[in-house]
Amino acid sequence: MYAIVNKELLPATEATLRVNDLAIQRGYGIFDFFKAINHQPLFLDDHLDRLYQSASILQLPVPYSREELKELFDRLMAKNQLADSGIRVTLTGGYAEDGYTIATPNLVITQQTLPVNTGLHNTGIRLVTYPHQRQLPAAKSIDYLMAVWLQSFVKAQQAQDVLYHQDNRVSECPRSNFFIVTKDDELVTPSHNILHGVIRKQVLQLARARYKVAEKAISLEDIYKAKEAFITSTTKNILPVVQVDDQLIGNGSPGAITSSLGAELLQLIALLTHK
Amino acid sequence: MYAIVNKELLPATEATLRVNDLAIQRGYGIFDFFKAINHQPLFLDDHLDRLYQSASILQLPVPYSREELKELFDRLMAKNQLADSGIRVTLTGGYAEDGYTIATPNLVITQQTLPVNTGLHNTGIRLVTYPHQRQLPAAKSIDYLMAVWLQSFVKAQQAQDVLYHQDNRVSECPRSNFFIVTKDDELVTPSHNILHGVIRKQVLQLARARYKVAEKAISLEDIYKAKEAFITSTTKNILPVVQVDDQLIGNGSPGAITSSLGAELLQLIALLTHK
Repeated sequence: MYAIVNKELLPATEATLRVNDLAIQRGYGIFDFFKAINHQPLFLDDHLDRLYQSASILQLPVPYSREELKELFDRLMAKNQLADSGIRVTLTGGYAEDGYTIATPNLVITQQTLPVNTGLHNTGIRLVTYPHQRQLPAAKSIDYLMAVWLQSFVKAQQAQDVLYHQDNRVSECPRSNFFIVTKDDELVTPSHNILHGVIRKQVLQLARARYKVAEKAISLEDIYKAKEAFITSTTKNILPVVQVDDQLIGNGSPGAITSSLGAELLQLIALLTHK
Repeated sequence: MYAIVNKELLPATEATLRVNDLAIQRGYGIFDFFKAINHQPLFLDDHLDRLYQSASILQLPVPYSREELKELFDRLMAKNQLADSGIRVTLTGGYAEDGYTIATPNLVITQQTLPVNTGLHNTGIRLVTYPHQRQLPAAKSIDYLMAVWLQSFVKAQQAQDVLYHQDNRVSECPRSNFFIVTKDDELVTPSHNILHGVIRKQVLQLARARYKVAEKAISLEDIYKAKEAFITSTTKNILPVVQVDDQLIGNGSPGAITSSLGAELLQLIALLTHK
């Protein structure tokens, strides 16, 4: 597998950054991650919009135009020849002389195979809640300190992921957005203090054609009363949630609206990637 | 200048980590930083205690004993031949296959010259306050997202550093501990939700011989009423604070107790390093 560091195409094992990069020194950087299906990048403009927005929030100058980035993605895809893959673009704080101040960002692009289907889309997953609010939530920064740290907790709770909340408002999972379907068939998802996911946006668009939809605060009680719940992400698409903490959602199996939206999302992706 | 990556001594410009390291992928890692004066590491056991504690909090196995680490520091110091320097030991989350799960940590040791004296010890500095609480505060993680991000704010406010607070309790500056001297000549410093600095501990020991000392919560009002204030860190030793936000501390110049403790700390360091 090959990777790109700044404009250089390299074997992935030789893709390195010097240890004075601000990502290593101070955990400072942003990234984005998109899928290519059948060699077609999916929702690429949304991902690039967010990449530039994340960079702007973190005060990182992006030394590449949108077209230059697309050319780099094309070069990497042509070299690696993976039909279906995930592509990650990382922009770090750069080589800081004082180890503290933003310098010229380093750009890293890596490509990887997609995770195998785990069957969790059929059974649904269990989430555990944890009081936490991501820092600078509108940016996709590389700050996953709590997320990585909480993995042992999630495992010990026999859950598949963690749902953050603060002041009795839930926000998001570390790498996914969170939705509920209420008893009145209204789709609800938080809109504040979250990362606005690309799949979240697509799901909202699909749902608005058929259901009541609200972007508003969700309390823990709202979840416990919900009929259905699911999370969305680039990797997972729509993944049903059947339990939150000790509370079953609905009857404890994936809900009908969740499954229907999940199928529609897959149709949309197939349509966009000619697969 | 040379650096060490894992056990390898390398020119610093060749000291690199692969881009799949969890520091670059997820901002996950810890470090510590100590001074060597006259080739003598200062308070090294305190720094090593904290390094192992930080690693333990972040669930990072340290693949080196204390003696092995000391040998690596000695090797690096012998090579670089800097009489006075700062030495940084970083332990990252390692090369994670899935880009998310803790792997075998990578160890990085770098050495650098000390920053030149800025004269700020004579004039004192201005702090601005900002509502924030560091994540996993007892660990010296590489998470400085807010600290790096706030630098432009600090500059715009014509301040030298930022003081974090939450729920009207101040905690610390991004790289320093915070102290006040009350009107009754009591030295007060927060003890919860902070990183316990090595110089903080030394200053508390020095101060207990001559003053009332309390480790307890400090509100913003406590600061505005204080007679003196200062911050402590490995790089700065004791640095007087003469203004917080728009409020002068005391008469707006470094306080007598601050200066006296600062001189005692320098004496202690001279004693320990035969300089």
